[in-house]
Amino acid sequence: MKIALAQVNVHIGNFAANVAKFKSLIEEAKLQGADLIVFPELGICGYPARDFLEYDSFIQQCQLHIESLATVCNGIACIIGSPSFNTDEQGKNLFNSAFVLEKGTIAKVVHKTLLPTYDIFDEYRYFEPNRHFECVEIAGVKVAITICEDLWNIGTEALYQECPMDKLILDGPDLMVNIAASPFDYAQKKNRLQVLKANVMRYQVPLVYVNHVGAQTELIFDGASLVLDKQGQIIDELDSFKEEMKVVDISSKGNPPLISGREEIEDIYNALILGVRDYFQKSNFKSAVIGLSGGIDSAVVAALATEALGQENVHGVLMPSQYSSDHSITDAKALALNLGIHHELIPIEEIYKSFELQLQSAFAGKGPDLTEENLQARIRGVLLMAVSNKHGHILLNTSNKSEAAVGYGTLYGDMCGGLSVIGDVYKTKVYELAHFINRDRELIPFNTISKAPSAELRHDQKDSDSLPEYGILDQILELYIEHCTSRDELIAKGFEVALIDRITGLVNRNEYKRYQTPPILRISPKAFGMGRRMPIVAKY
Amino acid sequence: MKIALAQVNVHIGNFAANVAKFKSLIEEAKLQGADLIVFPELGICGYPARDFLEYDSFIQQCQLHIESLATVCNGIACIIGSPSFNTDEQGKNLFNSAFVLEKGTIAKVVHKTLLPTYDIFDEYRYFEPNRHFECVEIAGVKVAITICEDLWNIGTEALYQECPMDKLILDGPDLMVNIAASPFDYAQKKNRLQVLKANVMRYQVPLVYVNHVGAQTELIFDGASLVLDKQGQIIDELDSFKEEMKVVDISSKGNPPLISGREEIEDIYNALILGVRDYFQKSNFKSAVIGLSGGIDSAVVAALATEALGQENVHGVLMPSQYSSDHSITDAKALALNLGIHHELIPIEEIYKSFELQLQSAFAGKGPDLTEENLQARIRGVLLMAVSNKHGHILLNTSNKSEAAVGYGTLYGDMCGGLSVIGDVYKTKVYELAHFINRDRELIPFNTISKAPSAELRHDQKDSDSLPEYGILDQILELYIEHCTSRDELIAKGFEVALIDRITGLVNRNEYKRYQTPPILRISPKAFGMGRRMPIVAKY
Repeated sequence: MKIALAQVNVHIGNFAANVAKFKSLIEEAKLQGADLIVFPELGICGYPARDFLEYDSFIQQCQLHIESLATVCNGIACIIGSPSFNTDEQGKNLFNSAFVLEKGTIAKVVHKTLLPTYDIFDEYRYFEPNRHFECVEIAGVKVAITICEDLWNIGTEALYQECPMDKLILDGPDLMVNIAASPFDYAQKKNRLQVLKANVMRYQVPLVYVNHVGAQTELIFDGASLVLDKQGQIIDELDSFKEEMKVVDISSKGNPPLISGREEIEDIYNALILGVRDYFQKSNFKSAVIGLSGGIDSAVVAALATEALGQENVHGVLMPSQYSSDHSITDAKALALNLGIHHELIPIEEIYKSFELQLQSAFAGKGPDLTEENLQARIRGVLLMAVSNKHGHILLNTSNKSEAAVGYGTLYGDMCGGLSVIGDVYKTKVYELAHFINRDRELIPFNTISKAPSAELRHDQKDSDSLPEYGILDQILELYIEHCTSRDELIAKGFEVALIDRITGLVNRNEYKRYQTPPILRISPKAFGMGRRMPIVAKY
Repeated sequence: MKIALAQVNVHIGNFAANVAKFKSLIEEAKLQGADLIVFPELGICGYPARDFLEYDSFIQQCQLHIESLATVCNGIACIIGSPSFNTDEQGKNLFNSAFVLEKGTIAKVVHKTLLPTYDIFDEYRYFEPNRHFECVEIAGVKVAITICEDLWNIGTEALYQECPMDKLILDGPDLMVNIAASPFDYAQKKNRLQVLKANVMRYQVPLVYVNHVGAQTELIFDGASLVLDKQGQIIDELDSFKEEMKVVDISSKGNPPLISGREEIEDIYNALILGVRDYFQKSNFKSAVIGLSGGIDSAVVAALATEALGQENVHGVLMPSQYSSDHSITDAKALALNLGIHHELIPIEEIYKSFELQLQSAFAGKGPDLTEENLQARIRGVLLMAVSNKHGHILLNTSNKSEAAVGYGTLYGDMCGGLSVIGDVYKTKVYELAHFINRDRELIPFNTISKAPSAELRHDQKDSDSLPEYGILDQILELYIEHCTSRDELIAKGFEVALIDRITGLVNRNEYKRYQTPPILRISPKAFGMGRRMPIVAKY
């Protein structure tokens, strides 16, 4: 049997464009002699469509377009994900379904059983779980169709009472097909391969796995679709971070997975490039504006944006104040030159003085404090948004995860932007990204990498004045945020008690700031945003 | 049997303070001769504790404090909600439980079966459903304990396969006790009474219902705890929007519910007051700053804040520009005078000119457009935040729901603030609130109510230049947002096609703005924020 794996990049809700693409892929798969073409989970509408799923008219659009897709499925079968109405009186209104299209019609509909509802997933918000298990015959092959999470209730930490493949295997399938919407994070690729292999080893049936590719605001889908033979060897594998269709003969003999040699940091780099590119393309914007401080965060974001959008579409703005060191300007200019991007200089000192003057009476009797630092950051935010508005650029935010975690940033100042590019990247990893970006030549000026980080909002300020070294800070943050490590465990790991309390206190207290940040491209198993939901008004 | 209903206002995660309060209520209930005291769902930690529930150390704190509470339960029994670990190998890590404390110890633990996962609820994110049904004997009375949603799977639209009371009734209970975390919205109170009555009528057993009171960031819990006799008559009822404990003899005869005579708008008013007050108290802030434009939105917010925080804690800032009409200033001043609040005048024209000058080269060759309007709004945002930072006031946001829906507002400008007070109130309802506020005397100047709404960001601008009349706009918005009404249905209701497409298009396209707004006090069944989760990059 020859199966086309359609690892597609879907634009959520853009039915006409998506289905036109799918139809041309079906035609191409036919030409290549495929018996079956497989699209990802909820491929018809994109993932996650979130509360659009609560609109009956949205579901009806899905159905109409599934029917339209069925009309071209002659001489080839198709599996594609779509929401479908639950016609029972009880339960949620919808199923998360896989439609089998064959001979110009809908041959079969299979529903998802295990509905992930944790981290960034909200599926039980919308869907009723399946309770009926049956394999589907396609072109003479008995296929056990499952949807993403359905294969994940395996191993010691079973999150669900049910194991769908344990039921389906009783039906004697020749093949497993799993359609998925499994977003990238730096740990996910390895986990995913382990889980898929564990299924093949357990059920002794080959597996076709088709995942989404492309970014949906904060979520970045890496694809990495593949076919495993029943020994768990890889018959074929699709590229990560690229839209692709590939026809695979599933009766071929597999090979052990290649050691890709790709470092984690390269995956993160590719994920962020795709994240930026898709945000712009899917929002129908072309160009970005970025505030360039001469520091490492804005340099890395500018380099990523240049790779994603092209140098002609990236506009840097330098906004020095009286506190800016000479190297801030020279380093930022050198960066712009290295990247070949346009840059502009807008000093903030005069505007700052004008605010000071008007605020004189409101500030009477009060000495300088953080207010003045925030004011500078906010003037820069207003300038960047003005350039963004006037020229139709999207402002890219340059905050990193370490800053976002401890609230080291100014709301409506450096926290402005349409998209946060490195808000899920700890400062220590930002340096790794910088080195990776510089792997062939000096794009990010060496001085930007080697100098001590500073916000430059007052004389001689350094990040290390108010924060511990990033090496220590990032370790505590990762343990507390990604692993929910308790105070006692952190103490046992040898961190200072006062430091632990200070850092975790800062993380908790600054939830109110993170509530208003731009969406953050997600590259870790626990990113700020939809994956981490915290009360704002709380005391813990 | 005498039961104390403890309708408490819990500070999420503030265990020591919460438990100290609970203990003193238990002592008081003993003095009043109660056999049992009932606290709300997840009362030990507050609701919603959200992802704090993913920290094992948080759950351990809950357990420790439940055990501590048990020590004072002598001569009285207690029911209180708390998360508890699921010790089974399969399923989620936690249960949402009701602990029965008696004779100084934990006598029994009952788990929640139906886990609401829709709108603002995320319970299946954390909890495993209960599968074991048994009544509990307390002081010789057989009690069927359920937790909030457990009683809601009744009527024609059953969301769940299971109905817990159908199982528990087989055990022959004398009494139902439901502990709840049911937030206010303008439709909820009526729904809730209907559901509780329907349960009593179905099972013919009296019911004690104890709800949270108090605001948790955006969610406002109204309390309205009550006791129904087995005919569905009300034995006793606690106040809405007030922390209260009341001892009720459940063998008393009930009376038909009083027609409270309270209008919906009064409930909304009280909810918003509580929402503002608790946001400040629980964040440990006292004072607010508000930009006063002379318009109705800021006037209503200032009046609500004055009622919530006291006139000495509300600071108005007037920030006129060259486009401000005379009445903007006179109306805003009149408002401040009527409310007895401090106000300050900070003109923005000079600052605006200073921005214009510095942006000259960046704007070269481009004519004026929306950029200049946004710039004014953002200068005001920066000024308000400067006053907020310098004096330790929280900035209250004054956007209404109609504006938030269509994106009629400037990010980092008038969309700034720690809390959005009327972001869930449509403009037409803002007028109703203004009339309610003026019920006894003119607090909000009549001219503010009667003049045509305008953002005053260019000469002679009126909201009606770019938006339909609010009467029409709000109808379309409510149908589309609260009721998910489709285009075809909207057309059938007689709205113009072009208008429907324009308005719904604006709602969908402005998701990116709403993503970065402050938390919004929720008073409707579908508020922006945690209750409505939409993709940003989508086309529908």
